[in-house]
Amino acid sequence: MEATKYTISMLVEDKAGVLNRVASLFRRRNFNIQSLAVGGSEQPGLSRMTIVVLADPAQVEQVRKQLDKLINVVKVTDLTDDDMVARELALIKVAATPSSRSEIIQIVDIFRANIVDVAAGSVTVEVTGDEDKVNSLFELLRGFGIKEIVRTGRIALTRGGASSKKIPSTKS
Amino acid sequence: MEATKYTISMLVEDKAGVLNRVASLFRRRNFNIQSLAVGGSEQPGLSRMTIVVLADPAQVEQVRKQLDKLINVVKVTDLTDDDMVARELALIKVAATPSSRSEIIQIVDIFRANIVDVAAGSVTVEVTGDEDKVNSLFELLRGFGIKEIVRTGRIALTRGGASSKKIPSTKS
Repeated sequence: MEATKYTISMLVEDKAGVLNRVASLFRRRNFNIQSLAVGGSEQPGLSRMTIVVLADPAQVEQVRKQLDKLINVVKVTDLTDDDMVARELALIKVAATPSSRSEIIQIVDIFRANIVDVAAGSVTVEVTGDEDKVNSLFELLRGFGIKEIVRTGRIALTRGGASSKKIPSTKS
Repeated sequence: MEATKYTISMLVEDKAGVLNRVASLFRRRNFNIQSLAVGGSEQPGLSRMTIVVLADPAQVEQVRKQLDKLINVVKVTDLTDDDMVARELALIKVAATPSSRSEIIQIVDIFRANIVDVAAGSVTVEVTGDEDKVNSLFELLRGFGIKEIVRTGRIALTRGGASSKKIPSTKS
């Protein structure tokens, strides 16, 4: 069966050891997590974890069930089949000379990205979008010399309720 | 000693088990990770992991040394004392009626956030900034009814080179 990218969203209790249990589960199954992001949720004491994993449908269903049984895991949702809003954030530090800087700024503007730091030899760019957008900007800036990049990995939410499928979403 | 928020940035090999080893280390020390984000880096085969942890200076120094010794961990940097650019991304799904929607849009504009999905009963907002900015927007939108929030946790880079301290950074 062919491996596909799955986005798993989990509501977990804000306790030491939760991440460890989740990571062990993926480790035992020998899954390489492509990205993982965890931060606060709308409910005090609970965090939301977003994991992107490459797996086949049978594997991911097994993992979903096992995650559901873990201590401190409140809810597991496989977002892959849902109509979801998915985004990631990256900070890219690019080498910049006085002469290349304006060209970099042009590219940054086209991508509706922002320059968040300027130094003598570099600029740092902040970009939000889906993985493809971040990758495209990265490729375009690569020619100038990438000093460092840090990415959050994907976060995602389902589109708003059943009605959302009938109402076109705004493009960011 | 008083606990402070530390930002640890790690360059790790893109292999199954790395996350597990890192999570176990924090677990054994009984540290609660406040946020964790992991995604690709500028080097093929390496990921960059950003961890925010509440600890005292002695604890964090011990953890840093132990992380440095882990298999598949290439480099560990404690960004806390550096002059860093730190950002996070959040998606917030807010309950919205035809009459409350324009007020929500106003707030979103003030925060230079974006609406990325509109449905009959809700709008989904994308916001990038530091933790305080995301928290402030969350608090303002809370009155309308928060349906769901997902956050990436902090990512961070040092400001550009030694020279950056002398050159004022642009504000996003």
